[in-house]
Amino acid sequence: MDFRVDKKRKSKFIYQQVYEGLREKILKGQVHAHEKLPSKRELADQLLVSLNTITNAYEQLQTEGYIYTVERKGYYIENIDHIIGIEKGIHNKLPKDLKEKATDDKDGWLSLSHMTSDLSIFPFNEWLKCQQKAIKNHIKELSELAHPQGPYQVRKTISKMIGLTRGVTCEAEQIVISAGTQLLVSQLMELQNQDSVIAVENPGYLRFYSLLKKMGFKVKPIPLDEKGIEIEKVISSGASFLFVTPSHQFPTGIIMPVSRRIELLNWAVESGDRYIVEDDYDSEFKYETDSIPSLQSLDRNNRVIYTGTFSKTLFPGIRISYMVLPPKLLKEYRKQSANWMQNSNSMALYTLHYFIESGAYGKHIKRMSHHYEHKRKLLIKQLKKRFKTNIEIVDIPAGLHFQVSFKTKKTYEEILDKATQVKLEIYSMTRFMLKDKMKENDKVDMILGFASIKEEDIEEAVDRLYQCV
Amino acid sequence: MDFRVDKKRKSKFIYQQVYEGLREKILKGQVHAHEKLPSKRELADQLLVSLNTITNAYEQLQTEGYIYTVERKGYYIENIDHIIGIEKGIHNKLPKDLKEKATDDKDGWLSLSHMTSDLSIFPFNEWLKCQQKAIKNHIKELSELAHPQGPYQVRKTISKMIGLTRGVTCEAEQIVISAGTQLLVSQLMELQNQDSVIAVENPGYLRFYSLLKKMGFKVKPIPLDEKGIEIEKVISSGASFLFVTPSHQFPTGIIMPVSRRIELLNWAVESGDRYIVEDDYDSEFKYETDSIPSLQSLDRNNRVIYTGTFSKTLFPGIRISYMVLPPKLLKEYRKQSANWMQNSNSMALYTLHYFIESGAYGKHIKRMSHHYEHKRKLLIKQLKKRFKTNIEIVDIPAGLHFQVSFKTKKTYEEILDKATQVKLEIYSMTRFMLKDKMKENDKVDMILGFASIKEEDIEEAVDRLYQCV
Repeated sequence: MDFRVDKKRKSKFIYQQVYEGLREKILKGQVHAHEKLPSKRELADQLLVSLNTITNAYEQLQTEGYIYTVERKGYYIENIDHIIGIEKGIHNKLPKDLKEKATDDKDGWLSLSHMTSDLSIFPFNEWLKCQQKAIKNHIKELSELAHPQGPYQVRKTISKMIGLTRGVTCEAEQIVISAGTQLLVSQLMELQNQDSVIAVENPGYLRFYSLLKKMGFKVKPIPLDEKGIEIEKVISSGASFLFVTPSHQFPTGIIMPVSRRIELLNWAVESGDRYIVEDDYDSEFKYETDSIPSLQSLDRNNRVIYTGTFSKTLFPGIRISYMVLPPKLLKEYRKQSANWMQNSNSMALYTLHYFIESGAYGKHIKRMSHHYEHKRKLLIKQLKKRFKTNIEIVDIPAGLHFQVSFKTKKTYEEILDKATQVKLEIYSMTRFMLKDKMKENDKVDMILGFASIKEEDIEEAVDRLYQCV
Repeated sequence: MDFRVDKKRKSKFIYQQVYEGLREKILKGQVHAHEKLPSKRELADQLLVSLNTITNAYEQLQTEGYIYTVERKGYYIENIDHIIGIEKGIHNKLPKDLKEKATDDKDGWLSLSHMTSDLSIFPFNEWLKCQQKAIKNHIKELSELAHPQGPYQVRKTISKMIGLTRGVTCEAEQIVISAGTQLLVSQLMELQNQDSVIAVENPGYLRFYSLLKKMGFKVKPIPLDEKGIEIEKVISSGASFLFVTPSHQFPTGIIMPVSRRIELLNWAVESGDRYIVEDDYDSEFKYETDSIPSLQSLDRNNRVIYTGTFSKTLFPGIRISYMVLPPKLLKEYRKQSANWMQNSNSMALYTLHYFIESGAYGKHIKRMSHHYEHKRKLLIKQLKKRFKTNIEIVDIPAGLHFQVSFKTKKTYEEILDKATQVKLEIYSMTRFMLKDKMKENDKVDMILGFASIKEEDIEEAVDRLYQCV
């Protein structure tokens, strides 16, 4: 056995060096199948190491199947194939076009994104206290797989809360928690007939559109009028499922009036298998008047699937969303749920439970509402000041973003290119439309979010925006 | 307007009572479309409340679209349809068969489940410290949506770690993090040709089997021999994808020797589109000898997709798993990933990053290895003592469970029924087999986990098991 060990090498034990030396010889075919190895004593003497070292190395090789032992005779090389390509050495060269930058390099950027939340006044101390309570009281539950729908206790708390704040009538049983609305929609729609036609809002949340298309459904984008999704076109679409955002249409912000809500609910009742998915993604933030009760609260026929999330009220990375299934769909869900696992972090779920129960969550939302309302007003004021008559703001006092139209001869592409240059994160309406909106009348539509921008940066952000437009 | 307000009612503001009273009248059709409402002053006088109260109520009703205003004339009822079923009242009566018990009522139960982890000596303090670091250093990242594959920094840390502990060669770019191996497999397989044939182990992890079947793939269960999945049957299956658990076959515990590993790797290279998914679900726990390097570490042709999880080393509810994509599949993944969101809790991800980096994770695994090894030995000792010659233990010193065979004339059903009676959580081999294993030779196979059982409960658990068998 012509190999050496380096006794001074600290990073590797000597037995590991012996093991690796032998392993390499075997893998590279430098020793042959059924060849006898030196006895442990012989090899120990040759390498000037302890017998124990060789024993450890041989045992590891034997466990992994590189060598075998014949009683009273000794150790032999196993018969193993040559690995195709072993001579190539390390296999995993990553092509340059797949390389990422180690950091985002967002230094100096300002963001008017609609996808963030503001953590600058998040009550982390309260949260940590609730987490400690969760650890203390639920050590057993944390060590096990959770119920596929999420822990009963957490569902109970959520059902009570949305009963109070959103008028949603439901039992804990009907709640399904998961790590995002996308996952919930995917579970929900797996239960449906693949031939179903699905109507979605256009402009709207294109991630759902893509998901549903990919699942094989026929998806019909329906335009909006001033009341939200056009009811006539929903009726003529032949859809049996309808995805809407009635509290604050995404992204236009339209609050669907009760007349349209009732039209949708009555449309659903007309046929036995029609359902409406109400995505209530940011309804917690409503300024000036109270929040608008959910569509589900008006439903008397179990045709609304309500979905909510903690991405906006807590933070996007919390990954806790939920849906409320009508009894008939819950029954279908239960048949499948043995195959599904709870995807939300259970420690975060129990923490959330105490966070809501203690009142800290309600307090946080109140505080954030004031905070966001203030930033919203500042941003609107600054926009009006800077753009004067060249801007139209769709001023619906709700949510964490609003829609604006700018008078400009520039194209969307030119504006977004310029935004990258001046380091401004911004999203145009084209992102939410299935067909690129034609540029009409020298206008562009943008969606401006105000969650992550700092108060003191608003003026600068609007200045940059002015340069772009 | 014949309705009253209760000024003493504390749970509802007076303006809310006015709002609700009017809303109910409108919804129930007790007032008619375009009917004029009393002026704010009139209604305030009538109800003996302030003008402000009525203003608030009217504004809320207007925002929601129940009433409209005509300048200088006053407020009018909107034209809204009758809600079909409004007279039914609350709609959501949950049928009794869908009711759950509020608590699991697991009092007095003992568990030999393979699905749990032991949190009794989990270093929560270290974990919380790392979490505080995560909050302090990553407030900006937490307020945004994470990279679909997970934060780069966390991927970097995982790639370094599995390089050291599992011999996996990869870059951070190749790592995809998600809230469970199931979600990863589902993303991975969405990239593949739907006509692909997929070979899986039988017995094996049936959740993958169901998932792949549901995705529309042809799934071929392949039996095992003493080296793991039978290579001849893999070859003849016509599969292009192969799912295996080489480090510790689930659930039998077989450690795949290097000869079979190489056969599988060479099988993959024979055709351009063959891949092996290596599910390394509990390889961190290997007793007596060192852990077995991953199959991926032997691969020289980018044909292995390595998957790992923190469900066993931390806890199942942490919901952090990852896969390592070969460059070609990474390229495919990137094309789709705009539609996917990161599903793991980002606070937990950054916490994990510091937990690994600080060495706390490594220390924890070492400590848990000793702890589990000790419990494992105790359980085996107790089983031998109690069952004597009526038990055969497949004693492979790895993982958090092992397989046993009992001599008994009882059926699986009888045993599991009895287990419920004596409050013992236990799983039989039938759970992991596609066809119910025929009862042969008066033997039953069970999978015994030792993660959650307390040391002092082992004797009692074995006693209960004895009663069942």
